[in-house]
Amino acid sequence: MYACTITSSRAIGSAPKGHRTLCADRRCAITVGDLGEFGVVARITGRLPQGESVLLGPGDDAAVVKAPDGRVVVSTDLLIEGRHFRRDWSSAYDVGRKAAAQNLSDVAAMGAIPTTLVVGLGMPADVPVAWVDGLADGFREECALVGASVAGGDITRSELVVIGVTALGDLGGHAPVTRSGARPGQVVAFAGRLGYAAAGLALLEAGLVPEGGPLLEAVEGHRRPRPPYACGPEAARMGAAAMLDVSDGFLQDLGHVAAASGVGITLDPTAFPIGEPVAAAAKELGADPVDWVLTGGEDHALAAVFPPEVRLPPHWTVVGHVVEGTKVQVAGRTTGLGGWDHFRE
Amino acid sequence: MYACTITSSRAIGSAPKGHRTLCADRRCAITVGDLGEFGVVARITGRLPQGESVLLGPGDDAAVVKAPDGRVVVSTDLLIEGRHFRRDWSSAYDVGRKAAAQNLSDVAAMGAIPTTLVVGLGMPADVPVAWVDGLADGFREECALVGASVAGGDITRSELVVIGVTALGDLGGHAPVTRSGARPGQVVAFAGRLGYAAAGLALLEAGLVPEGGPLLEAVEGHRRPRPPYACGPEAARMGAAAMLDVSDGFLQDLGHVAAASGVGITLDPTAFPIGEPVAAAAKELGADPVDWVLTGGEDHALAAVFPPEVRLPPHWTVVGHVVEGTKVQVAGRTTGLGGWDHFRE
Repeated sequence: MYACTITSSRAIGSAPKGHRTLCADRRCAITVGDLGEFGVVARITGRLPQGESVLLGPGDDAAVVKAPDGRVVVSTDLLIEGRHFRRDWSSAYDVGRKAAAQNLSDVAAMGAIPTTLVVGLGMPADVPVAWVDGLADGFREECALVGASVAGGDITRSELVVIGVTALGDLGGHAPVTRSGARPGQVVAFAGRLGYAAAGLALLEAGLVPEGGPLLEAVEGHRRPRPPYACGPEAARMGAAAMLDVSDGFLQDLGHVAAASGVGITLDPTAFPIGEPVAAAAKELGADPVDWVLTGGEDHALAAVFPPEVRLPPHWTVVGHVVEGTKVQVAGRTTGLGGWDHFRE
Repeated sequence: MYACTITSSRAIGSAPKGHRTLCADRRCAITVGDLGEFGVVARITGRLPQGESVLLGPGDDAAVVKAPDGRVVVSTDLLIEGRHFRRDWSSAYDVGRKAAAQNLSDVAAMGAIPTTLVVGLGMPADVPVAWVDGLADGFREECALVGASVAGGDITRSELVVIGVTALGDLGGHAPVTRSGARPGQVVAFAGRLGYAAAGLALLEAGLVPEGGPLLEAVEGHRRPRPPYACGPEAARMGAAAMLDVSDGFLQDLGHVAAASGVGITLDPTAFPIGEPVAAAAKELGADPVDWVLTGGEDHALAAVFPPEVRLPPHWTVVGHVVEGTKVQVAGRTTGLGGWDHFRE
């Protein structure tokens, strides 16, 4: 809830111009157009504390971040409104959590500890400042899970909300865990959740907005993934031979490991646990939950390949083996991509 | 010129579907929708050689880059079609050069040597692959000026072309040169060009498309800035007290130095050289070239503040002094912002 003065015709809604009022809802809202670029930047940076990895934070041409390992891990993603999120399906806070999560997860998937994000944000002038506040809060709180900070960014005007996120991380002396190290005889395992985001998206696309219970948990899985960040560096310490972040779908992403490593992978579909929210959504929609588990993206589970002698802790689930060959097979059948290609729909 | 097979209804233009032909113009073009996400990624990465700073390049969850200093400089920018560039005013190659330049320049403005870019690219499915090729070539060649590489990125679909660029750099053992170190008695200088981009943009906005001479050089200044990259680390070595990249306009950007340092700055407007292209454009349009020099952005000159005893090489031009106070004054008159705020037009 915000006390605001409507100072510009860009403000949305019906409150009288120039009238100071306490707002109970979004119809009366200060917009980013009212604040201007530098006001928005000041507002955002005021919500973003800087962690000990950040030597120089927002407010200069660039940030300066510790890279104690002498190497830095870097990954970037672009999120476009309507394609990666909808403002009517996800709160600003959830969009911030998710945008941070998918990039922090990419860093963890190399076996590194994320230290820093920088964020480019494009948006229309009529976006309420409260929305930007929520976005910044989401970034802050997802970063806090791993001790990272948003050290800088860029703000510009755009017809749609566009979010460019870049994550940096530190390998702590370990070799990066790439996609190309899988060898026949090794085991395939995953940590985290699978199928939740796809189940939640299917519920929203069907027009369902559950208010509680496992269906809401599925929708929350779409809005706010929960990557198992600590499992990335843990896998590196345990000697993982290959690892990646499941962003496009388990089968498609394992296909990248198979291709990069020059191996085949065989999976046991009965080895995948079906979460209660995924099962409930499948029942509600008459869908097969295993489809979501094997081909749904955006949960940001970590999939890794380990030498067979590694004793895995219980939060890693073994689901298959690396074999000679070139394909990913499920119960002996070669699979299609079943994932997500941004230019083929 | 491309030999292409039209394989999809997404291909623009009038060439018959499924007909193999040699294309003399853009009406017959393979699109990114034809190639698909992974095809586009492979095509782009094939055009981007990896320099010695890149330990792990494109194709994994994240890149791994050398950070020999134990710190890394990081800056990010978001470029939106129609706002930061127009595809009818700038070639893809020029857009790539410019997008790279403005980020490499931010790193140089800290006194660091740029090592790496990562690039998020959103675009419609009907963008010709030739456009993407040109963009990648522009990134590659601008990076080559400083020995940097595009080490990774992200591709997605978007209604407009959106480019998110993040640059990393190495300080080489020096302290970063921030905006906050200016002290009364120091001199203000700049390196690079001022007013070219604004003059060129004004010509394009007036509907003029010069084919040669100084007017074309002004337009080229808009399309392809020429930041004086080496002057950034040079300024750091010479003991610069403050520095920034002139992206929003000289007066506005010097205002950031004044605010961050808690000082005033007084400038001599007659000390600024007026480039021949800027003068020619001003004559053509009946404009005051000094306005473009003082308030035009996007040339990515470097402005720096030096202790008075520093002997500056001739590519640095002294244009003013740091004084007690809080304002930027030109010939004794306090100036307005005169720059560029993305939410106030």
